[in-house]
Amino acid sequence: MEISGKNFIGDKLSGLGKVTYKTIDPLKNIENDTLFVEATSEELKEAVALADAAFPIYREVSGTQRAFFLNTISDEILNLGDGLIDIYCRETGLPQTRAMGERSRTIFQLQLFAKTIETEDWRKNINEEAIPERTPIPKPSLSKTYLPLGPIAVFGASNFPLAYSTAGGDTASALAVGCPVIVKSHPMHSGTGSMVSAAIIKAAQKTGMPNGVFSNLNSKSYGLSHELVKHPKIKAVGFTGSFSGGSALNESVLKRREPIPFFAEMGSINPIAITVGALQKGTLEMAKKIAGSIVLGAGQFCTQPGLLLTIDGKHTDTFIKELNKALEETYEQCMIHPDLKKNYIRQSDKINGLNETVEIQIHKDQMDDNLVHPKLSMISGNQFIANPQFQEEVFGPFSLVVKCKNLQELEQVIYHLEGQLTGSIFAQADDYELIEPLIQAFKSKVGRLLFNDVPTGVEVSEAMTHGGPYPASSDSRFTAVGPGSIYRWIRPITYQNWPMELLAKLMN
Amino acid sequence: MEISGKNFIGDKLSGLGKVTYKTIDPLKNIENDTLFVEATSEELKEAVALADAAFPIYREVSGTQRAFFLNTISDEILNLGDGLIDIYCRETGLPQTRAMGERSRTIFQLQLFAKTIETEDWRKNINEEAIPERTPIPKPSLSKTYLPLGPIAVFGASNFPLAYSTAGGDTASALAVGCPVIVKSHPMHSGTGSMVSAAIIKAAQKTGMPNGVFSNLNSKSYGLSHELVKHPKIKAVGFTGSFSGGSALNESVLKRREPIPFFAEMGSINPIAITVGALQKGTLEMAKKIAGSIVLGAGQFCTQPGLLLTIDGKHTDTFIKELNKALEETYEQCMIHPDLKKNYIRQSDKINGLNETVEIQIHKDQMDDNLVHPKLSMISGNQFIANPQFQEEVFGPFSLVVKCKNLQELEQVIYHLEGQLTGSIFAQADDYELIEPLIQAFKSKVGRLLFNDVPTGVEVSEAMTHGGPYPASSDSRFTAVGPGSIYRWIRPITYQNWPMELLAKLMN
Repeated sequence: MEISGKNFIGDKLSGLGKVTYKTIDPLKNIENDTLFVEATSEELKEAVALADAAFPIYREVSGTQRAFFLNTISDEILNLGDGLIDIYCRETGLPQTRAMGERSRTIFQLQLFAKTIETEDWRKNINEEAIPERTPIPKPSLSKTYLPLGPIAVFGASNFPLAYSTAGGDTASALAVGCPVIVKSHPMHSGTGSMVSAAIIKAAQKTGMPNGVFSNLNSKSYGLSHELVKHPKIKAVGFTGSFSGGSALNESVLKRREPIPFFAEMGSINPIAITVGALQKGTLEMAKKIAGSIVLGAGQFCTQPGLLLTIDGKHTDTFIKELNKALEETYEQCMIHPDLKKNYIRQSDKINGLNETVEIQIHKDQMDDNLVHPKLSMISGNQFIANPQFQEEVFGPFSLVVKCKNLQELEQVIYHLEGQLTGSIFAQADDYELIEPLIQAFKSKVGRLLFNDVPTGVEVSEAMTHGGPYPASSDSRFTAVGPGSIYRWIRPITYQNWPMELLAKLMN
Repeated sequence: MEISGKNFIGDKLSGLGKVTYKTIDPLKNIENDTLFVEATSEELKEAVALADAAFPIYREVSGTQRAFFLNTISDEILNLGDGLIDIYCRETGLPQTRAMGERSRTIFQLQLFAKTIETEDWRKNINEEAIPERTPIPKPSLSKTYLPLGPIAVFGASNFPLAYSTAGGDTASALAVGCPVIVKSHPMHSGTGSMVSAAIIKAAQKTGMPNGVFSNLNSKSYGLSHELVKHPKIKAVGFTGSFSGGSALNESVLKRREPIPFFAEMGSINPIAITVGALQKGTLEMAKKIAGSIVLGAGQFCTQPGLLLTIDGKHTDTFIKELNKALEETYEQCMIHPDLKKNYIRQSDKINGLNETVEIQIHKDQMDDNLVHPKLSMISGNQFIANPQFQEEVFGPFSLVVKCKNLQELEQVIYHLEGQLTGSIFAQADDYELIEPLIQAFKSKVGRLLFNDVPTGVEVSEAMTHGGPYPASSDSRFTAVGPGSIYRWIRPITYQNWPMELLAKLMN
């Protein structure tokens, strides 16, 4: 399939704009061929108008039909074949196995949401019968169900061109419940986004969905994004990315006359706390496991463990040596984009430039092009507490070891943390009482708490919470992963005193 | 019980401030005796510090114990006896029967929330077992539950001194799930608020709840409210009141570094659409029913029907005459506060001053003191569509009849409406196909849709939605009434790979 570089305004390819850009092959450090045309303000307005017109039709489509649409999207993505894998790799520098794994995850998500809405169980319908004889006032019949909010704007992540982008979790969950979606394509992988968009449009046409149920807008400049989230007909926004990106977009959302739900997953540093007992039991296996999590995907995961909380002592010294060794033994990896490599160097240098930071694994960044090595640094507990800059996320294979005086100081470090997607505790059976204060401290800070496990690898299931207190997410009451993520895009409605024959239709 | 006029900073009565105010008996149009001392910034900070310290303790209290606390609050409110009813009436001008009815509702709500949390079902715990043999990667065990957000600020409504104020729905739902509550007392009924606060504190002490689980701050000035919602340790805000009040407070919430959930129920004009068929079937009964809903509680309900959408014709003329007559026959009623009467006159005069508005029921406002008569006005469909000022809520027994050319224009009127708490359709059996477009139009606009019924009277039950698209509420995804209202104050958390013995405790 040839990539046109144009926008999808509903089912129409459109490239009216004059501003263009290309994506980059970070492995070769050259530009890819396709010239992408940034969407104009007029194209944006047309996409929103189509979505708004499609909404009342799409809202009434049955769950079975919408499930068919989602399953057809997953078929059409698979039909893109090796072409999709090729462009994915050329736009990210990530290996083929990763591309194929992420495609599987994307397919799985689409099918899971299809299953979620195939029956109407997700609407949690409640029917209460009238009690006309109740005193002092009769009770009317009441029936509660859920409705979609309307057209949703989706901003995908740089690090998941498939699973958290064009047809990723946000899009799939919104389409599932009857919300049209307008994706602002991520400029680092607009080719991948274009191919997936074509698959979605094809599926919409095959399954008879209204035109406008999906649009895809290219843009490297920020203006279009802000215009999109400020548009009065956009009824919610889904964002996956950095804290700075999410915050900038939220500024525009807050300027709207009508407030709308803005769900942003903005990453975190995912602290791992390690007890002395856990280290006494043996450090080597743990060091390898944690090193693997730090460097996975060149550390470009929102759940990458960037903070290791330890207690000063000889076992910790051994652990740090072994962790350092395990990190040294990993291959250099290519980052997704030159900008991400630059940021990685800048952000890790910033931490290392802070008072008293000790660089354990030192690389003078002589790596070719976009390749990087992992980095490991160290700081004391009270230094960490004293300076909030230590909490800034370094996007890449970097981790900061915090050496605390004792468990009380470690607990204080957790209390001083900002909200996190995840927290982990490594401990052994004897520690159960000892870690109780750590558990309590983490409960106020994280969306997911792990025991003797690393945070990378976010299971797509009912029991997952991918979110957490601010700034990990903009609203800790929702998850971005799993069937529960649909509740970001729907609202309850109650029907009172309706005759049965009308009610039956209203409740579906 | 004597009312001290002081603030409750946790279990301590405190009146350090210099600014004082009194409440008003609107029937006699005189000030009540008690001098209320506005809370100072220091008292506010102390209340928040106590709530923050109480939170990790209160969060861990079992559901059974918290249910016991809520039930004891309801006992202690009943123990206040006639004293509470007296001050309620002296601060609102509402009749004793209403005071007693609202007390029953408040008690019922507290007991309902107690029942909701007595078992841990509300946490919707999900447990997924590990699948170590899964390929390519093993599945870890995952358990999802819900946690409270933290200290909540509650702002009660002028029109419900009991059911939507100090121990009303917001407070009860927040306390139920483990959130400490700080109430900013409504200055129109701070005496009622003080008595209820004393009952809550007594219940907290009797049931061994941590000090700081509840505080009550007096203030007539706005500064304290803004300071409260901006405090970093406040984790969510519940508000019931006017659009202007809610919007002003939200401005401050938006200035926070950490965004927090702000749930505001800001009222609406609750349109009732009436088909020609419904009128043909007979207008008298309908006119009486709707008139009763318009004047109930002097029209001081957020679900008061302030907009009647009709189709021009002789049946409509008959209906308007009968409605007018039914309104004329109602007694004059006392409004809760001189300011509310002034607003009622100002707001209804504003609508009547707009081009082409026809006043049907004319009162020159010669009523004594705080008594009011109902008012009825009329405008055409296209005039209504042309001027959004017709959509401004008149808080009081006012309703605006919109005469549309035909059903298509009526449908257009609905499409031009802002978000509403409720919408109603009066129709007869033959109309079912005819009203389909009205139903579709209303579905995008309301939180509750009624058939041949009036919107006043909000049932407290699982199937209720009290909320709706902006500006009826600030977030249409939640309800302010019923057990479901707890989901405003809680967030999910997932435990991964925890040993059973620790998990059992974490999931409760």
